[in-house]
This record gives sequence, C-alpha cells and structure tokens, in this order.
Amino acid sequence: MPITEPCLDIAHLGHVELLTNKPEESLHFFVNVYGLTETGRENDSVFLRGFDDYELHTLKLTASESVRIGHIAYRCTSPQALEKRVTEIEGLGCGIGWTDGDFGHGRTYQFRDPAGHIFEIYYDTRKFEAPESEKPALKNIAQRFHGRGVCVRRIDHLNLWARDVSAIRDWMPKALGSRLTEQIVLDSGLVSGCWFSVNNKGYDVAYTHNPHTESGGLHHITYAVDQREDILRAADIYLENDIYIVSGPHKHAIQGTFFLYALEPAGNLVEIANAGARLILQPDWETVTWTEEERKKGQAWGLNRSS
Amino acid sequence: MPITEPCLDIAHLGHVELLTNKPEESLHFFVNVYGLTETGRENDSVFLRGFDDYELHTLKLTASESVRIGHIAYRCTSPQALEKRVTEIEGLGCGIGWTDGDFGHGRTYQFRDPAGHIFEIYYDTRKFEAPESEKPALKNIAQRFHGRGVCVRRIDHLNLWARDVSAIRDWMPKALGSRLTEQIVLDSGLVSGCWFSVNNKGYDVAYTHNPHTESGGLHHITYAVDQREDILRAADIYLENDIYIVSGPHKHAIQGTFFLYALEPAGNLVEIANAGARLILQPDWETVTWTEEERKKGQAWGLNRSS
Amino acid sequence: MPITEPCLDIAHLGHVELLTNKPEESLHFFVNVYGLTETGRENDSVFLRGFDDYELHTLKLTASESVRIGHIAYRCTSPQALEKRVTEIEGLGCGIGWTDGDFGHGRTYQFRDPAGHIFEIYYDTRKFEAPESEKPALKNIAQRFHGRGVCVRRIDHLNLWARDVSAIRDWMPKALGSRLTEQIVLDSGLVSGCWFSVNNKGYDVAYTHNPHTESGGLHHITYAVDQREDILRAADIYLENDIYIVSGPHKHAIQGTFFLYALEPAGNLVEIANAGARLILQPDWETVTWTEEERKKGQAWGLNRSS
Amino acid sequence: MPITEPCLDIAHLGHVELLTNKPEESLHFFVNVYGLTETGRENDSVFLRGFDDYELHTLKLTASESVRIGHIAYRCTSPQALEKRVTEIEGLGCGIGWTDGDFGHGRTYQFRDPAGHIFEIYYDTRKFEAPESEKPALKNIAQRFHGRGVCVRRIDHLNLWARDVSAIRDWMPKALGSRLTEQIVLDSGLVSGCWFSVNNKGYDVAYTHNPHTESGGLHHITYAVDQREDILRAADIYLENDIYIVSGPHKHAIQGTFFLYALEPAGNLVEIANAGARLILQPDWETVTWTEEERKKGQAWGLNRSS
Repeated sequence: MPITEPCLDIAHLGHVELLTNKPEESLHFFVNVYGLTETGRENDSVFLRGFDDYELHTLKLTASESVRIGHIAYRCTSPQALEKRVTEIEGLGCGIGWTDGDFGHGRTYQFRDPAGHIFEIYYDTRKFEAPESEKPALKNIAQRFHGRGVCVRRIDHLNLWARDVSAIRDWMPKALGSRLTEQIVLDSGLVSGCWFSVNNKGYDVAYTHNPHTESGGLHHITYAVDQREDILRAADIYLENDIYIVSGPHKHAIQGTFFLYALEPAGNLVEIANAGARLILQPDWETVTWTEEERKKGQAWGLNRSS
Repeated sequence: MPITEPCLDIAHLGHVELLTNKPEESLHFFVNVYGLTETGRENDSVFLRGFDDYELHTLKLTASESVRIGHIAYRCTSPQALEKRVTEIEGLGCGIGWTDGDFGHGRTYQFRDPAGHIFEIYYDTRKFEAPESEKPALKNIAQRFHGRGVCVRRIDHLNLWARDVSAIRDWMPKALGSRLTEQIVLDSGLVSGCWFSVNNKGYDVAYTHNPHTESGGLHHITYAVDQREDILRAADIYLENDIYIVSGPHKHAIQGTFFLYALEPAGNLVEIANAGARLILQPDWETVTWTEEERKKGQAWGLNRSS
Repeated sequence: MPITEPCLDIAHLGHVELLTNKPEESLHFFVNVYGLTETGRENDSVFLRGFDDYELHTLKLTASESVRIGHIAYRCTSPQALEKRVTEIEGLGCGIGWTDGDFGHGRTYQFRDPAGHIFEIYYDTRKFEAPESEKPALKNIAQRFHGRGVCVRRIDHLNLWARDVSAIRDWMPKALGSRLTEQIVLDSGLVSGCWFSVNNKGYDVAYTHNPHTESGGLHHITYAVDQREDILRAADIYLENDIYIVSGPHKHAIQGTFFLYALEPAGNLVEIANAGARLILQPDWETVTWTEEERKKGQAWGLNRSS
Repeated sequence: MPITEPCLDIAHLGHVELLTNKPEESLHFFVNVYGLTETGRENDSVFLRGFDDYELHTLKLTASESVRIGHIAYRCTSPQALEKRVTEIEGLGCGIGWTDGDFGHGRTYQFRDPAGHIFEIYYDTRKFEAPESEKPALKNIAQRFHGRGVCVRRIDHLNLWARDVSAIRDWMPKALGSRLTEQIVLDSGLVSGCWFSVNNKGYDVAYTHNPHTESGGLHHITYAVDQREDILRAADIYLENDIYIVSGPHKHAIQGTFFLYALEPAGNLVEIANAGARLILQPDWETVTWTEEERKKGQAWGLNRSS
C-alpha cells in the first residue's frame, strides 16, 4: 500500500453557530460565566470569541425557537485549498453552494454531512483587532487574559449525534481530509464513536452514535483551557452560578482529556477541556480502536467504572 | 503577493543528540530526575524517551570529551516529502549526504545549518512498543505515565546559538519549510532571536544571537509537560536532588511558555516548559516582531523586569 | 450562656494502625504508590510516615487475618494536658488503661469510643531524624520531598463507622475536647454524620452512620496533599498501578475538600484530600448542620447530583 | 526545664488597616484585581474582606496623606482570654488603652510593639451575613466564590519592619503568646528576621530587620489562596492590569510558601501566598534558626541564588 501524504487543506475548526430560545440568559452565561467576549451583533445573532482565538468570532449565538446547533465552519489553509476541497465535496454529492460569507468571514461554501449537519468552509477571514480595553500586555496574543468567569481560551471541538457513524467515518476524510484518530467499534460491528482531526490536535470533531437523533443533532461544543486546575475552578464557578453540571470533572479514556460538561441556560451541552495536552504530531498515526469490552471500563477516572 | 501555502513536508522534531563528559551522572539525571525511559544502548550512546513520545527515542545521550549538542533530527511527513526536502536542501548547498540511519530510524539525510549545527531528516522510524512493565492503562498512549521524577511528557524544542541569526532566518524556511512565528529585531537591525515551527506548535527550534559562540553551539533543549504545576513540582524535585536551577519557574513573554532552566550534571542546559498551551492553528500567521524597547521589559513575569 | 473557651488539650491526630491480610501488597502500595516512607519494623508491623509528618510514624501497618483499623492515636499538647484528658476520660467510664507506649512514642492511655474503636493519647514522642538519604534541602521540614508515587504530605483524618453517631456527638467533645464543626441531621432526627476537630483544621475525625457496622468499623483514612493537581496526578498514578478508584476526584460539599477514594490491596479504603485549604480559625465556630434535603444535592461537584 | 503549655489566648489575625494616598485607585485594585469584597464605608475608610473570611472585614482601607500601615488587630479566643492578654500587655508597659471598637468589632484594647506599630485585640465581632447576591452555594462558607480577579481567600499574615528584631522576639511571645516558628540570626548575632504564630498556621506576623525604617514601617500584607496555580494566574492578571510585580512567583525557603509580591497603586506592598500548605500542628515545635550562610542560598527557587 503506498504511503499517502496527510491532506492539509483544512487549517482548523473556525466557528460554530448555536441556537437558543433563551438568548438573554445564554448570552449572560457565555460572557460572564464561560468568559467569552462579544465582538458584534447582527440580526438575531451575537458573535463571541475566546481570548486566544485570532478570528473575530468563534461562536455565533442566535436567538431561535429551537435549541440546537446552527452550522459548523472550518477555515481552509489557503484559497487554493478551499477550491480543492469544494471540488472534492461537490464530487461527494453533498454540496449546497456558495454564499458571500457572514459577519467576520468572506466567501463560503456550504455542504451537508451524511447526518444532516450543515458545514461551511472559507478562507478569507477578519482577524480580531483588540480595542484599547482588550489590548493584551504581550503582543503575541490577540486579546488580553481578562480572567472573567471560566475565561476559556479558544474554541476546541464539537461532538455531533449521528444515526450512522460508519457513514461519517467514510465521508469525513474525503470531505475535509480529516484523520480518524480514535474510534469505538462494538462487538456487533456498530461504530459507536469516531474522533477526527485536520491538524495536530487530537480531534476537532467527534460523532457519537444515537439511533434516535433528529437530523443535525448536537452532543456538545467545547472550548479549551490550559490547566486542569482551570477546569476545577470552572466547577466552583458553575456551582456558585447555579449552572447545571452534567458530568465531570473527569478524565476521558479516549483522547485523555480532562473535562467538565454543563448545560447553558437554554439546554445546549457545553464542555470545557484541556484538549491541547496531547498532540498528534505523528504523520502516520494509526487509528486507535476501542472495543466494547474496553469501553465497559468507562472513563479513565472520575466516574465510577460501573456507572 | 500571492498567498503561498504552508509547507508541510516536515512533521516534527524527532530527536536530539547530547554529548556528555559525565555519562553516568547525566544518565542518572535524565532517567531518575527528569523522568525519561531508556530504550537501548549502542556504542557510547544511551537512547531515551518521554512517556508520550511515540518513537523509540527522542534523546541520544553520548559519552564524549565534549559537553555539547551532537545532532538534531526531524521526521518528515512522508517518503515523498523527504525526497522533496533533500532536493531543496541540496539546492541550498548545505547538504552532507545520506546515511543508513541509526538506532530506531532508517535512511537519513544529513546537512548543516549556517551556524554549523548538524541536522538530519528521515521518514522511516521504529515506534516504541511498550514492554509489559511499561504498558499504559489507556491504549491511546505509547507508554504508561510512570510518575518517576519530573516525568516529562515529550520532546518539545531546542534553542541554538548562532553568530548570525538573520542568516538562519533566511535559511530555515527554505531548508525545513518552517514558519517564523516570532523574532527579536534590535534597533540596529540585528536579529537577536528567531522562533520557528514546522507544525501547529509555537516553535520546535529557536536561535539566539551569540557573537562568541563556536560553531554548532547549544543554548538548551526542552521537553514538554502539561501543567504549570508540573513545573513547580519539578523545581521542588530539582531542589531536593541538588540540580542547579539557572532560571525560573518564570513565564516567557515570547511564546508565552511557563518554564524552568537547569543544568544537567555535565552542564548542558535543560528546560521544562508547558509549550503546548498556545497552538499556531492560523495558516496565515504573521511573524510577531519584538523591538529592543519591548524586550527591555524582560520576561512576562517571574524575573524582575530590571534584571 | 457563658462563653466557654475552646479545649486545647489535644494537639493533633498522631497515627493510625491499619490491619492487612496482604501485608506485602499493602506495604508496596503505601510505599511506592501512596508515597509513604518506612521508618521501622517490629513484630508484625511496619511503621510509615508522610514526608511532612514530624513524628517517627503516622501509619502502623500490621499483618493480620483481619482487614480493619487497629487503633487511633492522638498527641496531647503537654504532659499536663495528657493528665487532664485521662481524668476526663476515666470520668466518662470508657478508659482501658495505661501502656508503656509503642514504637516511637512513650506512655500512652487507651480508651474506647461508644462505637467500639480503640483510641490512645500520649505526649512523649520520637521525632523523625532524617538519615542522609532523606535529608531535606530546606531545614524547616522533617524529610525531603521525595516525589515517589502520590507523595502524600501528612496524615490528615479518618472516618469511622458508628451505629449511633449521636452518642459519639455527645462523647467526643467530652473525651478529646473536640469541636463539632459540621454534621448531617436527617428529617427523622437521626444524626448521619459528624465531623470533629481538635485544632485549626476542619476535621481530624468524622463518624458516619452505618446501622450494619461491626464494632470499631472503618470508613477510610486520609493523608493530605497541598494541591488539587496532586490529586488529579494521583488518579493517573492509581490508573497506571491498577489501584481500584472507588470515587473521585470530586469535591465534598461538607468541609469543601477535593478528594479521591481508592482501595489499598487488602481492601482498606484510603483517601487523598487537600484538607488544609479551609482552616477553622474562628474560636466561636458554630456547627454547620446539613439537612436531609440539602444532602440530597450530593457532593459539591464531580458526582452527578442524582447519583 | 518544665514543659510549658502553648498560650492560646489569641485566635488569629483579625484585620489590618492600610493607608493610601490614592484611595480610588487602591480601592479599584483591592476589589477588581485582588478580589476583595466591600462590606461598608465609614468616614475616610472602606471595609473589605476575602470570600472565606468570616468577619465583616479583614482590610480597612483609609484615605490619607500617608502610604503605610494603620493598625493591626488580632481576635482573642474568648472574653476571658482578652482580659488575660490585657493584663499581660499592661504589665509590659506598652499599653495604650481601651476603645469602644470600630466598624464590625466591639470593645478593643490598643497597644504598641517595640517597633512602634499599633496593635489591637478584641473578642466581640460581627460575622459577615451574606446578602442575596453573595450567598454561597455551600452553607459552610461565609460568601460565594465569586471568581473576580485574583479572588484571594482569607487574610493570612503581615511582615513589619523593625530596627531591632531581637526586641520583638522577646516581646511578642509575652504580648500575644505567639510562638517563634522560624528566625534568621546573622553571624554577628543580629536577628534579621522572625516569624510568629498564634495558631496552627506557620506565621501570622513576621518582622524584618531594617535599620532605616521609621517607626511602624510595613514590609507587606498577605492574603492566602489555596493553589499555587492561583498565584500563577494572579501573575497573569497583574500583567494584564499593569500592576507592578516586585518579585515572584517564587518559593520562600522560610515557611516554604509560594508567593507573589506586587505594589498596589499607592505603593503598599501586597503579597499573595499559599500559606496554608504547611501547618504547625506540633505543640512543642522548636524554632528553626537560619544562619547567614544558609540565607546566602536565597529563596528555595524562583530567584537566582546569586541575586
């Protein structure tokens, strides 16, 4: 088998749109508890960013009657790479078409994954230029470490529901050129989870099997912090702000991340994780496959193994 | 100016060879204090690895009359990328030639940087297969978290002396396809420091101006840990093991890493840093240039600003 | 009501004796995983200490056919205080009598709590004198920070089973002069837990209601570490050493400690906690009483609230 | 020599008054950067507290033409202990007399130390009753963990200048019943530093030799945090808020605390330290004496040893 080179057309996860039916409460949470910074408003949407994100926004929070994910956007490595990806995606028959872009980024190509989530890819973007009040002390970071609330650092990944994860497993490497870094395959052969990465992070998107999910279902979105202590501090902050903690702080067996799941006020599941601890620098990384037996051991620690 | 795509022929820093005139003491330090694991011996060399390195070794410790760096090796992304790089490097007129490889890796091309350091690039490598005693509890990591000494995680970067850093600044992007992520340019125009990266880490090699250095001089080598607390714990361990702490724990202004410098018994400078905190995911990252005035402020914190 | 002065006759928890039917495995755990240091052997017992304990030992590990607690010893503030306490305890009718002491401490008075646990109080003790290999770099600490395993700092507290915790609640302040810092009282009036302290720590002994316990039952013993990160690191070490984690790392609502429960090889429950975070400096501390309703919320965080 | 019992008349350091000639800027610093909470105002003073302090205030910040310490107050263990202490202090000839108290505490006795600092002792105090907005999620703590700025936990200690520290060394155990936990004695016999404690903490007040100090000079005041990571985070917050860091984060050799010194806007030196890590539970603690030679090694780590 010839050794194929990694595809590097996609640089990173760019932003996610979340829909909320409690826009005021959700915004209060994301700004004052989670620690994002608002950079703009348009129509029913507020645009938000982590202090170490370099783009104008990484979260688009949109008032809606629904509580779910809107779309998921990735930034390409170059204009040429964007064109290459569009050709590939059109070939897969899942394209929607071009738009002129949105707040903070230019020309964008939309498409759908096999589970019904709307994806976008783009190259032209607007970098965050810190106003005086947000200027950092060190010029190599986009925004000051403001220390407000959990003060999450940067967008990290998201986890999506799918009825057929194996279809995603075929599609994602073709569509985004992602690597499958880890997966769970049950004894029946059913693929119950897949983790994908377009760069040196362990994952930027995961899919979890859910036979009952509607089209385009969201498990959770995640922002990264540096230190495990930041996640313990986040739990203290959530406790005092009456944010419902769903699970954690625990350590995932898969990817080895230390994490905390909580519900933002409208009910979207929001994670904090130290997802930069382990990097996938190996160019010929071999997918790690977890069996049903291995998964029965549960998380690395934090949750009782029997639970 | 056309937007050029990032060159991604080089995957990551592979290993470094250090020469020591106190081989017993140095080995004791690297294994029992720093926390590396021995994976082999050949001739006058001992081969060592961090628990999250995937290759057989990342440090080659060689008994010698000198105390200095031996060579620096990078792993390529693919066999094709290796050939491409060799063509480029030969075109730069700094090639030495091919070798059959060394302990743990195959066919290798050697060359010299303008400051006299010997570099190697290779693709074929031997992955670490954990013996029973080193098997990890979680199968997605190469070796168990043994917790011995500082228990550094993986090789991170090195910092090399150069009389003419601007020559390196021209050469490195051509030779390895690296990005120049940060630099210091004094008022006189002298380039006093450059930081380079071949992947999403902020840097894998830096060069520091030293008008008095011999050819091939080493500032320091660095292994990464996850948590800043690991670095504080390392200082406690160094204190109790009578390891001379040169500087730190402090926070670098450049790259924002929290770090600790100490001397291994033979006198090579060895750093520990949380170098994965900030990732360079941005494909069109613009080099951050620090002025003489800005550098006078010193480190971010930890050292008095006047010192 | 006149303001009574705190009784300060008892200085601190001195040591605990644990019985094990797997003495080799238990010793290996306590030395190499938990990180205690052996300071002596006598008959079927091995004596162990945390690196910041000042006495010769704080854990007596005794080979036995049983797996349970042996005795619990407290050190008095002065010889006079010891006499005062003996008088009080004899007045309570629960005294056993004087012994000549044991390895590391002198003349000792033994007695029984209402739940059948054997207690001892003593004043004369032998301080740990570090041998050359254990000499600390800083002279204000008894032993070097060796960094082996979890490297627990000092003995902290224990939690004992009792069929009638309210009897203990009456008895303990009379016997040891302890303060009742926190308690759980169910709607039925049943006291399901009590936490006691003889000094500025939040607790040195707790009792938990267990209608089925035998006389003298042990819930767990605990050693302290400084940092919450030490407890996360301990979980990683337990995972790699195949130590069964029963619960945690989580944060207790009561006392606010961050903790990790695991089973040593013979089955005694052993905790690690950052129990020095909150001090009870207030001389007129008022007991905090948790209701059944409040306890239904579970721990502060880490365990699902419903579990 | 008879074994004397520890004097336990004084429970803990109660509060400190700081004078500032930049009252607005100082208040902004203490509330928004340091993370104290305002609980009242009277005349030229604002009263402030850490979230885990149980009294109404622990810092009295007073507008003044001077920048220095006002007074230092300790709370007694009981009304009887207060009377006992007053008798002792009057016998030492350094009493000033009784006042009716101040904001938050009752009848108070004032006196002067040999270096001219004004001390107060009192028993009656007003406990903090959290308003709705500051109610904690857990009822065993006085105020919610608000997470604002550095969010220091509780008042810890202060360090005072004295021309003759040996005079203080004689006086303090007589006046407050403090224990001398550590000291520095130079080769000449000059006492250059003393650390005193009235409870299980390692110190609540230290004195440092300064031949040029005016009467009543302040070195620094300190609030405690739990985690060393909190102190690193504080350095990041200071950096972003343009607070001048004088020294640290480093680890003190004496008392072993990890610390950070900075100047509040008026120029008073303010420390953050994890001063609860090591407790002095030993009733017969023997003073640790550091020699001139030993002090030349400098701090444990963080500062170069030669500096």
